[in-house]
Amino acid sequence: MTEKQIGKDALKKTKLGLDVKKDENYSEWYSQVITKAEMIEYYDVSGCYVLRPWSYSIWECIQKFFDTEIKKLGVKNCYFPMFVSQAALEREKTHVSDFAPEVAWVTKAGDSELAEPIAIRPTSETVMYPSFAKWCQSHRDLPIKLNQWSNRWEFKHPTPFLRSREFLWQEGHTAYETPSEAENEVLTILDLYSRIYTDLLAIPVVKGRKSEKEKFAGSDFSTTVEAYVPVNGRGIQGGTSHHLGQNFSKMFDISFEHPDKPGQREFAWQNSWGLSTRTIGAMVMIHGDNNGLVLPPRVASIQIIIVPVGITVKTSAEDKQKLLDKVTEIAENLRISSQLRVECDLRDNVSPGWKFNHWELKGVPIRLELGPRDLAKEQVLAVIRYSGEKRPLEFENLTNSIEELLEQIHQNMYKRVEKIRDEHMKICLDWNEFLPMLNQKMILLSPFCGCPKCETLIKEQSTREEQGEQLGTSLMGAKTLCIPLDQPKDVLPEKCIYPECTEKAKFFALFGRSY
Amino acid sequence: MTEKQIGKDALKKTKLGLDVKKDENYSEWYSQVITKAEMIEYYDVSGCYVLRPWSYSIWECIQKFFDTEIKKLGVKNCYFPMFVSQAALEREKTHVSDFAPEVAWVTKAGDSELAEPIAIRPTSETVMYPSFAKWCQSHRDLPIKLNQWSNRWEFKHPTPFLRSREFLWQEGHTAYETPSEAENEVLTILDLYSRIYTDLLAIPVVKGRKSEKEKFAGSDFSTTVEAYVPVNGRGIQGGTSHHLGQNFSKMFDISFEHPDKPGQREFAWQNSWGLSTRTIGAMVMIHGDNNGLVLPPRVASIQIIIVPVGITVKTSAEDKQKLLDKVTEIAENLRISSQLRVECDLRDNVSPGWKFNHWELKGVPIRLELGPRDLAKEQVLAVIRYSGEKRPLEFENLTNSIEELLEQIHQNMYKRVEKIRDEHMKICLDWNEFLPMLNQKMILLSPFCGCPKCETLIKEQSTREEQGEQLGTSLMGAKTLCIPLDQPKDVLPEKCIYPECTEKAKFFALFGRSY
Repeated sequence: MTEKQIGKDALKKTKLGLDVKKDENYSEWYSQVITKAEMIEYYDVSGCYVLRPWSYSIWECIQKFFDTEIKKLGVKNCYFPMFVSQAALEREKTHVSDFAPEVAWVTKAGDSELAEPIAIRPTSETVMYPSFAKWCQSHRDLPIKLNQWSNRWEFKHPTPFLRSREFLWQEGHTAYETPSEAENEVLTILDLYSRIYTDLLAIPVVKGRKSEKEKFAGSDFSTTVEAYVPVNGRGIQGGTSHHLGQNFSKMFDISFEHPDKPGQREFAWQNSWGLSTRTIGAMVMIHGDNNGLVLPPRVASIQIIIVPVGITVKTSAEDKQKLLDKVTEIAENLRISSQLRVECDLRDNVSPGWKFNHWELKGVPIRLELGPRDLAKEQVLAVIRYSGEKRPLEFENLTNSIEELLEQIHQNMYKRVEKIRDEHMKICLDWNEFLPMLNQKMILLSPFCGCPKCETLIKEQSTREEQGEQLGTSLMGAKTLCIPLDQPKDVLPEKCIYPECTEKAKFFALFGRSY
Repeated sequence: MTEKQIGKDALKKTKLGLDVKKDENYSEWYSQVITKAEMIEYYDVSGCYVLRPWSYSIWECIQKFFDTEIKKLGVKNCYFPMFVSQAALEREKTHVSDFAPEVAWVTKAGDSELAEPIAIRPTSETVMYPSFAKWCQSHRDLPIKLNQWSNRWEFKHPTPFLRSREFLWQEGHTAYETPSEAENEVLTILDLYSRIYTDLLAIPVVKGRKSEKEKFAGSDFSTTVEAYVPVNGRGIQGGTSHHLGQNFSKMFDISFEHPDKPGQREFAWQNSWGLSTRTIGAMVMIHGDNNGLVLPPRVASIQIIIVPVGITVKTSAEDKQKLLDKVTEIAENLRISSQLRVECDLRDNVSPGWKFNHWELKGVPIRLELGPRDLAKEQVLAVIRYSGEKRPLEFENLTNSIEELLEQIHQNMYKRVEKIRDEHMKICLDWNEFLPMLNQKMILLSPFCGCPKCETLIKEQSTREEQGEQLGTSLMGAKTLCIPLDQPKDVLPEKCIYPECTEKAKFFALFGRSY
């Protein structure tokens, strides 16, 4: 048995390793990965989860990137109360009808009933816009560009990261004098969301508009980035950027005097955009494998773990010390010369094999093994998490080699997912092929009229009849994930994909089962 | 009338300027400063306030400093749910009795009653420690060092920043194998809290231990940094770092096998420490003046505002352009060469005088005025917010001059407050002088036995009988602000300050009326 195999057995015995395979019992796999990789701790309030440092640090990477970028755009951070009065919450009816069934109400403080119950914000349009109305008096007060990093409440069937009662997100809220300024921003933000996936999480996404049926209630149009989850062929919404038009500004009277027409009130043009810790769930599902989590290097809180190996009872104290010194020296060099996030695992109560499996479970992108023979050859063995590939690296220029390797890992992780995604994102022009292709875990680009009624029928008729939960697929019907901004080069057929539809096709929509 | 006076009148007319003096109607002054300087917007849920970018950016400065420092100590960020079950909340009885009357309960989701009401965290000991118990199996699992940046709930008489139903804070929670490790950390964190006041907010603080009566319920001992508010002579608690001993670890079973005595369980030694947005309130109260907010340079989101002046109807378009170009150039240089936070106010719908008053109200540390005559002399006029001093600065070496000036401003703002604080922090050895000195807005270092009973009596008997709210002082009695870590050099008298006390004095305690 290899050291690694011994370590694996030890890990299983202590129940630290995974004991299911991703494609055999996907939901159990997910639950084991997030707990055993120390991302999530379950909690005694149902639908709430603890974000441990191993997952929270990913959120911090996303925050740092996005916060820097929006500040360049002139967006400023602020904080609005978590509580919202009933009156404010219910001001915009279309909007609130989507949230009302899930809203949490605080009715008591200590032992006393509150005079009026107060709600915990679902999303902050109704929390913020009364203030926007106060601040917007003249066109000179525009644009208003605010963002907040906060927690919010949602109550649906919970899954850690994907849907939880409480979750962390950022929500941006802006108001402009003209619709074109607002519309431009919608796409600028969408682009940043896309970069969070492609540049940080190594996940390809499709940028698109939401259909009428799927758009944010109260918006003129919604845009989204959609990722693909290979294991069950579902789409997952990755972040949304909405143009609210004047819907809220009319309700909340966010208005200003027309600069050229004295006395005439104009209503502001608004956007809202949000991205949540669901990003982390998408990353786990898409990159994780049978050995556990696989972290993309740019968000890994430890990018490189160094493990000393080959120390036996025969190793002299002096040789052992030399080896440990070198391990520490390598780590220090990588930290100082290139600010890489590197740790050494020098524990002496667990074997190297146990450590290998432990850090694989936690998804660290590169493991460096250093033994007496490596030391003699002035090299270190790099083991790449996502591929399992082993590659000796010379001490000389080690920082450069590691930097390049991390870069390659990011690119290759991205390409691997992109290839699978592309193999499963197909054009479908024939309704008879629609369901069979969907059942082959595909997401489908099909001509679509855009009507909510038609989308409802497509959803109903694509609902699977057989029991499929065990396989990690779902009974659910297909909905539009988005109307891709980059439309296929193919000629758009005249008719909508749904055979009984009499409307013309307006565009290719991306259909799929979805989270 | 000067340009500035005209601007001031305009500001008052539009109700943008302050119309009360700090020492005439302090609470109205406070309310006007925080709203007119655009720090706070009032909100329709009582006790909740909107933190606008002008105040939130100060919080971001504090976050950046503290987050960097605790990460150096190996503390990691995480996020625990905002909701806590009744069972967990009530586990530690001593602790919860302090919070129970104020806890907010969620009892409904949408229209349905929850099966069990859930509480919104007051502080997270009872939220986090069940997880700590799971994570702590062996002494090798220690230390656990976690922090979270979050919102919490408290329901007392609200004042913006100082006390609000919901407020933002960080809370650190750590567990160690030995008491000495834990006790060391308590003071390390206290030191960081002290530096937030001295190094960022230019406010002197006294570091000390809380008395038995004032300590955090459930702690072995609590430490605090206390600042002094000159206008009403009150102390204000600035941040607290608690040693919880084994009180919570015994309740929640955070234990491990003794490394040297197999089979014997040991309980972990714990700390918790927190600092909130109340920091911002202290800063407003202590530095603000009759013209508005005064921002210490290191937390000012705009450190320098540049205002072009002296442009009249006679100024040629070319000369005007030259002036505006230079203003922009200076700003760019300061930004690029020294990352200073600088903005130009080029608005043409308000006068320079209006701008002067506007930016003074908002507390920007330095205003640079540039007019055609300054341009000819190759200099710019710096006007210093906290002192009103005017100082011409040559274009040559301007970045250096400004950097030095900002540094001087920080030091001088600190020294000015320190001088006033020191004049009002006196040793009092005679009970007969105690109340008269207190009424002269003093905080008093007096010999104290340390007993809660004695402290209660001192508080009762120092409660003022006359009505004093109008003056911004309070009816409240004196309590111990802290037992200063640096004790006065004076010999400690034998007896406690309270005349009827028969106990010996154990130390000098700092007494005062307090927020």
